[in-house]
Amino acid sequence: MADINSRIEMPVTTGALPGSRKIHIAGTLFPDIRVAMREVALEPSAKEPPVRIYDTSGPYTDDTASIDIAAGLPALRMPWIEARGDCERYPGREVKPEDNGIFGGLKQPEVQQFPNVNPMPWRAKGGQAVTQIAYARRGIITPEMEYVAIRENIGRAQLAGQIRDGEDFGAEIPDYVTPEFVRSEIARGRAIIPANINHPEAEPMAIGRNFLVKINANIGNSAVASSIAEEVEKMVWATRWGADNVMDLSTGRNIHNTREWILRNSPVPIGTVPIYQALEKVGGIAEDLSWEVYRDTLIEQAEQGVDYFTIHAGVRLAYVPLTANRVTGIVSRGGSILAKWCLSHHKENFLYTHFEEICEIMRAYDVSFSLGDGLRPGSIADANDRAQFAELETLGELTQVAWKHDCQVMIEGPGHVPMHKIKVNMTKQLETCGEAPFYTLGPLTTDIAPGYDHITSGIGAAMIGWFGCAMLCYVTPKEHLGLPDRDDVKVGVITYKLAAHAADLAKGHPAAQLRDDALSRARFDFRWRDQFNLSLDPETALNFHDETLPAEGAKVAHFCSMCGPKFCSMKITQDVRDYAAKQNTETMLAAGMAEKSAEFRAKGGEIYLPAVG
Amino acid sequence: MADINSRIEMPVTTGALPGSRKIHIAGTLFPDIRVAMREVALEPSAKEPPVRIYDTSGPYTDDTASIDIAAGLPALRMPWIEARGDCERYPGREVKPEDNGIFGGLKQPEVQQFPNVNPMPWRAKGGQAVTQIAYARRGIITPEMEYVAIRENIGRAQLAGQIRDGEDFGAEIPDYVTPEFVRSEIARGRAIIPANINHPEAEPMAIGRNFLVKINANIGNSAVASSIAEEVEKMVWATRWGADNVMDLSTGRNIHNTREWILRNSPVPIGTVPIYQALEKVGGIAEDLSWEVYRDTLIEQAEQGVDYFTIHAGVRLAYVPLTANRVTGIVSRGGSILAKWCLSHHKENFLYTHFEEICEIMRAYDVSFSLGDGLRPGSIADANDRAQFAELETLGELTQVAWKHDCQVMIEGPGHVPMHKIKVNMTKQLETCGEAPFYTLGPLTTDIAPGYDHITSGIGAAMIGWFGCAMLCYVTPKEHLGLPDRDDVKVGVITYKLAAHAADLAKGHPAAQLRDDALSRARFDFRWRDQFNLSLDPETALNFHDETLPAEGAKVAHFCSMCGPKFCSMKITQDVRDYAAKQNTETMLAAGMAEKSAEFRAKGGEIYLPAVG
Repeated sequence: MADINSRIEMPVTTGALPGSRKIHIAGTLFPDIRVAMREVALEPSAKEPPVRIYDTSGPYTDDTASIDIAAGLPALRMPWIEARGDCERYPGREVKPEDNGIFGGLKQPEVQQFPNVNPMPWRAKGGQAVTQIAYARRGIITPEMEYVAIRENIGRAQLAGQIRDGEDFGAEIPDYVTPEFVRSEIARGRAIIPANINHPEAEPMAIGRNFLVKINANIGNSAVASSIAEEVEKMVWATRWGADNVMDLSTGRNIHNTREWILRNSPVPIGTVPIYQALEKVGGIAEDLSWEVYRDTLIEQAEQGVDYFTIHAGVRLAYVPLTANRVTGIVSRGGSILAKWCLSHHKENFLYTHFEEICEIMRAYDVSFSLGDGLRPGSIADANDRAQFAELETLGELTQVAWKHDCQVMIEGPGHVPMHKIKVNMTKQLETCGEAPFYTLGPLTTDIAPGYDHITSGIGAAMIGWFGCAMLCYVTPKEHLGLPDRDDVKVGVITYKLAAHAADLAKGHPAAQLRDDALSRARFDFRWRDQFNLSLDPETALNFHDETLPAEGAKVAHFCSMCGPKFCSMKITQDVRDYAAKQNTETMLAAGMAEKSAEFRAKGGEIYLPAVG
Repeated sequence: MADINSRIEMPVTTGALPGSRKIHIAGTLFPDIRVAMREVALEPSAKEPPVRIYDTSGPYTDDTASIDIAAGLPALRMPWIEARGDCERYPGREVKPEDNGIFGGLKQPEVQQFPNVNPMPWRAKGGQAVTQIAYARRGIITPEMEYVAIRENIGRAQLAGQIRDGEDFGAEIPDYVTPEFVRSEIARGRAIIPANINHPEAEPMAIGRNFLVKINANIGNSAVASSIAEEVEKMVWATRWGADNVMDLSTGRNIHNTREWILRNSPVPIGTVPIYQALEKVGGIAEDLSWEVYRDTLIEQAEQGVDYFTIHAGVRLAYVPLTANRVTGIVSRGGSILAKWCLSHHKENFLYTHFEEICEIMRAYDVSFSLGDGLRPGSIADANDRAQFAELETLGELTQVAWKHDCQVMIEGPGHVPMHKIKVNMTKQLETCGEAPFYTLGPLTTDIAPGYDHITSGIGAAMIGWFGCAMLCYVTPKEHLGLPDRDDVKVGVITYKLAAHAADLAKGHPAAQLRDDALSRARFDFRWRDQFNLSLDPETALNFHDETLPAEGAKVAHFCSMCGPKFCSMKITQDVRDYAAKQNTETMLAAGMAEKSAEFRAKGGEIYLPAVG
C-alpha cells in the first residue's frame, strides 16, 4: 500500500504504483515543458522495454517529489500564462460568509482557509479572450497544446506505419498527434483543454473525439455527510487511479474553502456546477435565485481557478412541461433547480437569457463550458424523449454562441439509455453541436441493478465512448443509494478506465493495444508480477491472486489455481508453439495445414518449463 | 440474510428474497405442470399489482418447501418422462474408484456418496431419440415446452398490442410465447431445452435467440482448493441470484460423488466438460486419453443426469499449428488437452472422428451438445483469427451431424474480443451454425483489468446478447487470478443478469422493461423498500443505502443522501408534474409549448410531500 503523508492535518495517499516510476518527456517547441508519464518496468525474462502509461496522478506518485498540501502543487503553467502577456492580476473578489454557507454573522466556516490564498487572481486584459480556442484560431500553438500532443502520443512512435484496426465511426484519429493537430482540433471546437488561468497547477489534457477517451470522477460533501479531509483525499485518490478530470459537486457549508484546497492541490482540471453554490447563497430556495447571485458565483469560482462550469442553460421554460409525463421526470439536480425557477417566475431560464454575459466571464479566465443536460432521462422509460432532444438542440445553438465568443465548449449527455438507443444520442449530438466534445454520464443500460450501476453504466459508457463520446462521467456502486466512500470512488474510476480503454481499442487508437498485448504476454509467460503491475489495479489483482495462492513462489510458478500444478493449458500451448516452430509453421501455413499435419512426428516434449527468474 | 438449513452436514442457503414469495402457474395443455415464479409485492401506496419475476432458484426460495439435500429435490419431470413410454430403466454402470480420482486400491473418496443413488437410470428404448428436438420435429408439444412457454411469458399478456421498441438484428421474438412457438424453435434447432431424462429435478428452461437471454455460472473444485460443501452451496447460491444453468468444472478427486450431490439438488440444468474427468482417469496425461475412456465417461455422466456436455470436437489437428503465432496460444483447457493429444499422436481429434457415436449416446439420454470453442482467443491480440474461425466452421459442420441424429445443440464462443469485433462473431456463428444457440464466455473487451474481468466481459456479454447470443457464461472478479469464492460467484451472477437484461431491453423483448419501469416508479416515489426489492440484489442495495442513511425513517423519507433533506430534484419534478397537470399538458403539447408557456401562472406549491406509509 502507498505511504500516508502525515506532515499536515490532511493526509493524502502518495507513492508510486507497484513496479512503476514517474518519467518526464521534454517538449520540442517548448523545451521547458516536462510531460509526466508512468513507466512500468518488466521482469528481465520478458526481454521487453518498460511500458509507458498515460498518467493522471500528478506529483503524488512521484517518489522524488515532496508533497505539502498546505503549500499546494507547483504552478507549472504559470510561466506559460505570464509569457503570453495578455492577462493581468487584480484584487480578487472579497470572500463573503455566504460563500461558505454562513448566514447571520459570527459563525466561522468549520473548514480552515487554505494558507496563502492568492489575493490577486489573473484575468484577461481588456475583456479579450485568453482561451485555448482563441489562441488556436489565431494559429498559435501553446505549451498546453504541445504538452497534450506528447501525452497523447505515448507508444505511437514505435507503431509508425503499422496497419490500424478498429471502427471509428467517422472520427479522424491521426497515427501521430502533432502539436499542430491539437491546435487544429481546438480551433474547430472539436476538442478542449480545460485550463483556467487561475489553476496553473493542472497538467494540460485534451477532451475530444480524436483523442484518448477520458473519464471524470465526481467528489463532494453533502448536507448529510462527508468532510474536507475526505474530499481532498478523494481527489488525490481518484486521480491516482486514473481520473482525467474531477468535478467538485459540494453543497451545504464550507464550499468555498473546500474548493480552494482541492484546486491548489489538483493536478487535473476541476469542474463545478455553480448553480449548486448559488442556491446555497439564497438559502436553498430555487425561486430566490437571480442572475446577480449566479454571476457573482461564476466570478468567485473563476478567480479560484475552476476549469469548467456545468451550466444548464438549455433548460428552457418551454421544455419543462415536456417532462411532466415522464416516469422519473427531471433527475438532474441543476435541471430541476432551473425548472423550479422557470415555473415559479414564468420566465425563460436566466442562464439562457444571460448566456452572452456568461461567455464574457468564461473567456476572461478560460473557463470551459460544460453545457449541462438538465433534462436527461432518469430511467429507461424516459430515454431519448422530446424533452431530452429539445434541450440538446438548444445546447447546439448555445455552442455556436460560445464559439462566437472564443469560449471552449463541451456538451453533457445522458443518463439512462438502453443499448439500442445509445448510438442515436452520439450521432445527434455530433450533428446538433458541431462536433463539440460529448461528455456523458454512463449511460446506464438498465434500471434494475442499484448497487451495480457502475456496471450497468460502464456498459453504456464503453459503447458511447466507442461511438465518439470524448469523456465519460463515472458512476459508483452507490449511485441512487448513497454517498460513495473511498472504495466506491476507486471502483468507479477503475470501471470507467476499463470502459474508456475498451472504447479506445474499438476506435482503433494506434497504440491503445500495446498495454493489452504486454499484459497478455506476461499472462502467457506466467510473469505474474508483470501482469499485476500492468493492470489498472495492481493491488486488487495481487490480492485476488494471493487469496488462493499466497505463497511467494506461486508468483513465479508456471501454473495458476484454475488448473493447478498438474495441468495447465498455457503450458500445453507452449508445447504447441515449440512443436509448430520445429515444423516450420510458415511453410505449413503456405502449403495448407490439413495435408501436412498428417506428417507430424511426435516429440515427447517436457511440458514443465523451468520457473521464471 | 437468508436462513441456513442445518438439518444435514451440508448447509445451503434457503428462504425467499426480500418482499418476495414463490407462486406457481398451472399449464393449459398439461394442467399438472406448475411453473414456478417469484412475485414481489409493492407498498400499498404504489397502487400497483405485484411484479412477477423469472425465477431460477427452485424450491430453496419457497418458504413452504422443505429442503433436505440428502433426499434431493422432487423429480418434477419424472411423470412426464414415464408418460412418454419411450424410455426404459436398466442397471447402470458400476461406479469405479477412478471415477472419483482414486487409483491403486484401498483409498475411499473423501466425499460421501449421495444417499439412495438410483441404481437403475433411464435410457431410450432401442436406441431411439428421446430428445426434445426429436419430439418437436414429430410435432409433439411436451410438458417441458409448455413449461418454458409460461415461464418466458411473464408480463407479456398485459402488454398485448403495445408497440414494441428495440433492435433485434433479425431475431423473431413473438409478442406472446405459445407452446407451439417453443416447439417450432426447438424443431428447427434454434433453441434447446437441456433436459437429461436422468435429471428430472430440473425445471425446464430454453436457450435460444428468440427467448430471454440466459446466463451460466461455473462452479467446481480444483487440484488446489475448495470442498464439496462449498460446491453444492455454490450451485444453490448461484441459482438463488439468477443463474439459469450451472456448469460443474470439477477436476481432481471426488468428481463423481460431488456431481451426484449437485445434480440431485439442482433446479437448473447442469453442464460439464467430460474431457476433464476423462483426463483424471488417465492420470492427467493427455497423450493417454482414448475414445474408450472418454466414451465410458460420457455414459457415466449421462446416467447421472448431466444436461449438456461441452465437447471440443472442433479442435482439429490441422488447426492446432494455426495457434502457434498467437500472443496467448490456446487458453481453453479442453482445447489444449485435445491439441496435446492430436500433436502427440499425429492423429485427428478422436472427438471428431467418433462424433456420430457420441451423437448416439447423447440422443439416448437427451444430453445436449455444447460444442466447445477450444481455440477461442485468450487475448485482444488473438481475437477473430484464423484458428478461431476455422474451428467455428467445423462446429457448424458438426451441428448438422448432431441434428441429423435428433440431438440438441448449442455452440460455444469467445473469449477476449474488442468491441468492434464482437458483431462479426455473432453474425458468423448464425450463418455457420444454422442459428443453433450461441453460448459465449463474455467476451472480455480488454485485457488490462484483471480483478475486474466480470466488468470487462459484462460489456461484451451485454453487446453479444443484444446481437443474438442465447446464453452468456459468467466471469467472476477472480478470472485469471484464482478461484471464485461465494461473494465472487454472486457478483459474477448479478453482473451477468444485468448484462442479459440490458440485452433483452435492447432486443425489444415485449415485457423486459416492466421491471425497470416498476423500479423507476418506486425510485421516483421514494418507495425505497420497493426499489430494493425489485433490484437484482436487494441485500446490497439496502446495505449501501443504510451505510449513509441507516435510520429506518430514511427508507420512507422523501429524500436521499445525494441531495439531502433540504433539496431534492425528484421533489421538484413532482411540482413540475402537478403544475403541468393543472395546465392541461395535453392541450399545450398539441398547441406547441413555446407559445403557451409564457401564459403560465405561478402556484407556490408546497414541495414537501407527506412521507409514504
